[in-house]
Amino acid sequence: MSSTWHSFIDLTIFGESHGPAVGMVLDGIEAGIKIDEDRIRHELKRRSPGQALTSARKEDDELEILSGIYQGKTTGGPITGMIRNQNARSEDYDAIAGWLRPSHADYTSLVKYHGFADPRGGGQFSGRLTAGLVAAGSIAEQALRSHFDFSVGSHIVKMGLYSEENWNAENLFEAEKYHQMNVPCADPDTVRDLIEKVREEKDSIGGKLETAILGIPAGLGDPFFDSIESRLSQLLFSIPGVKGVSFGEGEKFAGMRGSEANDPYFMSQGQIRTRTNHNGGILGGITTGEAIVFQTVIKPTSSIGMAQTSVDIHLMEEKEKTIAGRHDPCILLRAVPVIEAAAMLAIYDAYQKDTGFHD
Amino acid sequence: MSSTWHSFIDLTIFGESHGPAVGMVLDGIEAGIKIDEDRIRHELKRRSPGQALTSARKEDDELEILSGIYQGKTTGGPITGMIRNQNARSEDYDAIAGWLRPSHADYTSLVKYHGFADPRGGGQFSGRLTAGLVAAGSIAEQALRSHFDFSVGSHIVKMGLYSEENWNAENLFEAEKYHQMNVPCADPDTVRDLIEKVREEKDSIGGKLETAILGIPAGLGDPFFDSIESRLSQLLFSIPGVKGVSFGEGEKFAGMRGSEANDPYFMSQGQIRTRTNHNGGILGGITTGEAIVFQTVIKPTSSIGMAQTSVDIHLMEEKEKTIAGRHDPCILLRAVPVIEAAAMLAIYDAYQKDTGFHD
Amino acid sequence: MSSTWHSFIDLTIFGESHGPAVGMVLDGIEAGIKIDEDRIRHELKRRSPGQALTSARKEDDELEILSGIYQGKTTGGPITGMIRNQNARSEDYDAIAGWLRPSHADYTSLVKYHGFADPRGGGQFSGRLTAGLVAAGSIAEQALRSHFDFSVGSHIVKMGLYSEENWNAENLFEAEKYHQMNVPCADPDTVRDLIEKVREEKDSIGGKLETAILGIPAGLGDPFFDSIESRLSQLLFSIPGVKGVSFGEGEKFAGMRGSEANDPYFMSQGQIRTRTNHNGGILGGITTGEAIVFQTVIKPTSSIGMAQTSVDIHLMEEKEKTIAGRHDPCILLRAVPVIEAAAMLAIYDAYQKDTGFHD
Amino acid sequence: MSSTWHSFIDLTIFGESHGPAVGMVLDGIEAGIKIDEDRIRHELKRRSPGQALTSARKEDDELEILSGIYQGKTTGGPITGMIRNQNARSEDYDAIAGWLRPSHADYTSLVKYHGFADPRGGGQFSGRLTAGLVAAGSIAEQALRSHFDFSVGSHIVKMGLYSEENWNAENLFEAEKYHQMNVPCADPDTVRDLIEKVREEKDSIGGKLETAILGIPAGLGDPFFDSIESRLSQLLFSIPGVKGVSFGEGEKFAGMRGSEANDPYFMSQGQIRTRTNHNGGILGGITTGEAIVFQTVIKPTSSIGMAQTSVDIHLMEEKEKTIAGRHDPCILLRAVPVIEAAAMLAIYDAYQKDTGFHD
Repeated sequence: MSSTWHSFIDLTIFGESHGPAVGMVLDGIEAGIKIDEDRIRHELKRRSPGQALTSARKEDDELEILSGIYQGKTTGGPITGMIRNQNARSEDYDAIAGWLRPSHADYTSLVKYHGFADPRGGGQFSGRLTAGLVAAGSIAEQALRSHFDFSVGSHIVKMGLYSEENWNAENLFEAEKYHQMNVPCADPDTVRDLIEKVREEKDSIGGKLETAILGIPAGLGDPFFDSIESRLSQLLFSIPGVKGVSFGEGEKFAGMRGSEANDPYFMSQGQIRTRTNHNGGILGGITTGEAIVFQTVIKPTSSIGMAQTSVDIHLMEEKEKTIAGRHDPCILLRAVPVIEAAAMLAIYDAYQKDTGFHD
Repeated sequence: MSSTWHSFIDLTIFGESHGPAVGMVLDGIEAGIKIDEDRIRHELKRRSPGQALTSARKEDDELEILSGIYQGKTTGGPITGMIRNQNARSEDYDAIAGWLRPSHADYTSLVKYHGFADPRGGGQFSGRLTAGLVAAGSIAEQALRSHFDFSVGSHIVKMGLYSEENWNAENLFEAEKYHQMNVPCADPDTVRDLIEKVREEKDSIGGKLETAILGIPAGLGDPFFDSIESRLSQLLFSIPGVKGVSFGEGEKFAGMRGSEANDPYFMSQGQIRTRTNHNGGILGGITTGEAIVFQTVIKPTSSIGMAQTSVDIHLMEEKEKTIAGRHDPCILLRAVPVIEAAAMLAIYDAYQKDTGFHD
Repeated sequence: MSSTWHSFIDLTIFGESHGPAVGMVLDGIEAGIKIDEDRIRHELKRRSPGQALTSARKEDDELEILSGIYQGKTTGGPITGMIRNQNARSEDYDAIAGWLRPSHADYTSLVKYHGFADPRGGGQFSGRLTAGLVAAGSIAEQALRSHFDFSVGSHIVKMGLYSEENWNAENLFEAEKYHQMNVPCADPDTVRDLIEKVREEKDSIGGKLETAILGIPAGLGDPFFDSIESRLSQLLFSIPGVKGVSFGEGEKFAGMRGSEANDPYFMSQGQIRTRTNHNGGILGGITTGEAIVFQTVIKPTSSIGMAQTSVDIHLMEEKEKTIAGRHDPCILLRAVPVIEAAAMLAIYDAYQKDTGFHD
Repeated sequence: MSSTWHSFIDLTIFGESHGPAVGMVLDGIEAGIKIDEDRIRHELKRRSPGQALTSARKEDDELEILSGIYQGKTTGGPITGMIRNQNARSEDYDAIAGWLRPSHADYTSLVKYHGFADPRGGGQFSGRLTAGLVAAGSIAEQALRSHFDFSVGSHIVKMGLYSEENWNAENLFEAEKYHQMNVPCADPDTVRDLIEKVREEKDSIGGKLETAILGIPAGLGDPFFDSIESRLSQLLFSIPGVKGVSFGEGEKFAGMRGSEANDPYFMSQGQIRTRTNHNGGILGGITTGEAIVFQTVIKPTSSIGMAQTSVDIHLMEEKEKTIAGRHDPCILLRAVPVIEAAAMLAIYDAYQKDTGFHD
């Protein structure tokens, strides 16, 4: 597998959907950072199932810190967080044992792990492992905030026919406002209705999120393999369901001219700024000091309540089956804290590389 | 900087646009692989300036192998390739010294490297460093082909108003045909005219490429941080100008239902396959054996021939200037071999991790 | 900190001496390896305090596997093991709070972590973290044994005036026998008496171990930075108290001529072997197929029962104090399973790199 | 192979003994460091053959910087140095083609690289690759000296029967003096005579060096896998011929009591220091601010001028042959700059990790 992200900081996530626990070890965080465990729990809660509009599986996601925090502050050693798995209804999976769920990793797991992976709930492929990512991201965020203040928020730019494509991240982004919303977009009622409709139809739906982070200083990141885009995309594409990542104007760049897309520099209150921010706050892989803006495309949840026809590996023939279990009609809403956590990790990693463990 | 990609294989790229040389060191390639240096040179030529429709700067890009190949075969040691820089017209940059070129890394370089980076031609940020990526990718491709055969090709799906969005990668992709075309798309004349028009207008244009690789076995890659998507996106986003990466249906997933987007498994000639390939040949971060399909969005070349207003750091005020030099009106065509090289490296890396150095 | 060893496999250790738990996450182990948890517990018991001749602190070191093993076999995902801390008498440390224990990391911790590290029992510097190393090593050993059989054993070559320096690893090593002994050496009674005497004198003593591994195939490892010596020494020097590592003849090489020290090749039953094994089974960083032989020098336990004079950082002056707590007069015996675990990890790592995850 | 050392800084070495060139790419060096190329050349000259008492092969080792230095200062990008191979008498190796030189990696290379490695002069196993290490070390040293001043020196503590074992690093080390000496020890004439005698006898001899670095600040390094000992030993054991590494009292710890070996802290001019430095300036993997002291054991050069009997792989039987070529009777003297370079890299790496790229 590849459960360790090895950069300036090291993040290791672990666990299986129906195993004893999931969690993470985060190493490279400076000593002396005050950690508010409630803030970690709040982020975990944003991700956790059992929220309105999401899967009915309810997990308390009770985090236990096993190391790295002493008297409320980081020790400089690895921080370990563990969440016991509860409420895992493995019996839902018995009915479909050996049946390759469409668009799930059941087949690739079989080829890669020769059938030894825990099949229940997706095992080590489960989205539940992103709980570790969220916990780590919250710690990274708190460490970052000890150095400077910033805002982070995400909103839905597309879901089915719903679209906010003409939205302008540069001038209007109200990151904090979106950060507080359960359904972060201009028209939450429409989106809520859409998701409810999809759920009733036993279907699922994909979408696209845009995230902006305001207040990050210029100069973080590196050209080439450790560009902010490279670091962030590596983390984002490790989130189950993410199928696209773009920065700044993203997709729109394909239709633009240089004369439209360029971000000229100007002087603003003695500071060098860019007049526009088509590049989403990153040039040459390094932050410009403008808002970091990126989009994440998420595919429709693969588990749907309809009957589907797929291969049963015991019979080596196709069978129609219905996945019981509890499914999210749309994982977009639960993905928000995971995506923001990835951003916090990527930025903190770049910050630490530039300023050092001792800053 | 971050010029080493450290995975199962290690790739280090080096050089500056107007320095003595650019090149790469590639380590982790098995011993005994027959390397055709002409094939590397052919790929370098595809990337090199001076081709029709691209920058007028002409570089022979003459590759010299410094290590790792003995009697035409890999030794198992690091392979080093060097390309001397020639024909660098540094004087083009004198006129704009200290003037922050819009959408270039001139400002971020200044913040990061305190003004010590070589400013000529973008220095270590230059797209010219991708020559090392191309050379490494060609070696990875030759190593991969010693194990199994496959096809790789890319085509333009969007450029300005030109669009092939309805193209179907699953059934129709003719990778090899596109691989032979200078302007790989359904209507090369229209695209050629578009690029010429942009050049005449002293402007530039962005675009979107789709790449498909057919014949890659199932089971390569890992869930989470070393997913095929994560490895590939890290490499792709290190290419200057790349601002978006997506897989399979990519952007379209945001408008799809699970019932449309799912790829059910079926039996085909005794093999497990998927009926559709919306996921672009990757599930759970691991190859399914279907075509690997991904899209890359490239922004318009930042250097354009028009006058632009930006900050002069010597005066700390805005000045209108025109970038002389030789610019590509569209780097899309030259990006094709770089993108394909990144794909070869990501896939070979995953293959080697699974089968080992000794396979 | 640096709690992740990132090579072909990734090992992350975590915990603090008096925190909630210590443990490890081991990633990169093939799927389907049968894991006998009792064998892990047996190795942990060899390392644990409360054995004869060691510290009186008694820990059950009850291991809980949190992930990566399903139905008794590895899943291919990260394997997480956790051991709750118990029986931590933190009050022993209250009396010396702020007093820099001689030859401990108390001062370097202060400089590095600005006083935020958990001071109790050495915090993240504690030898207790090697429990994670031992658990990981046992898993690596079991994975290795699924591929080929081998023997591993260690014995004391020096402790104070006791010496077995003339012992010949090449011909006489009886690895398995030593593996079974609590005091692995030619004269256990003498060594036992020595340790008892040191304990009575409230002092401690250092020593030197030699480890041999027989049955490892030729060809594992790499020249330069991933030589078997480099991998193994990186792991060995991460064990608290280890101050020297040498291979084959080790120290004796400094007094030898090439004509004595060279290992000529000869044919033995159709196989290429070396007549002697002065190099300890490694040439050019790669295994020769002969016994892998190395020595580890361990300093006397820094915590001794005598009064010592050192700096009190609250007063910023010297104070005489006595460290209460429970100390090992000699950590050599408890170091044996840790050193062998490091060897298993280094060899398995090299084996996996050569044969691949899928072997 | 494993030609990249991947830590905070990345060092990649490349080349083969008789190939076109050897060299290195060093990434992660801050921008703006003034680099004196003559100092690099001076260090290369210390290592190069053709010096008195060493191999008669004469290489000018003319370094060419290919990237990373602009107007005499580091750009922040990867620094590439290349040295063309000259004066390679490959014909010396023709006579012994297929004959496995005793104690060389000829056999392990065969197993690992299936006979595809360049056999001439040891190919990628050649000690000549350490030229890249020396160049990189000199750059690291110059970068370090831009932050603080320090002294580094090495001397011979043992060679055959010659011994300076009672020498006291703590009080007497005169690092700078040794740094200037060709034969750094208390009695250079005796050592010179010894080496000459060994050469006349067509034999070789091993030895042990001790290196001390004075002036390194406290707080560098990390516990466990990135301890200063771990970092340094990984680099030292990548040097061909190194078979032992120890720190502080090193071997002597095995005979010591805690009451003798402990380093109590005391106040000296308002600073916390240790009264003794048995631990060689490192506790818990982190520098104490005292002199960093370590020993390196080097085996006798494997190539000797005497006839030896070993296996000829073409015949698969033993043959007596004599290695012509030009051999060092003792590589200890040439190893000094390589060992010091490794130390500079390990310390700079730790320094950068703590203070950041931007310091």
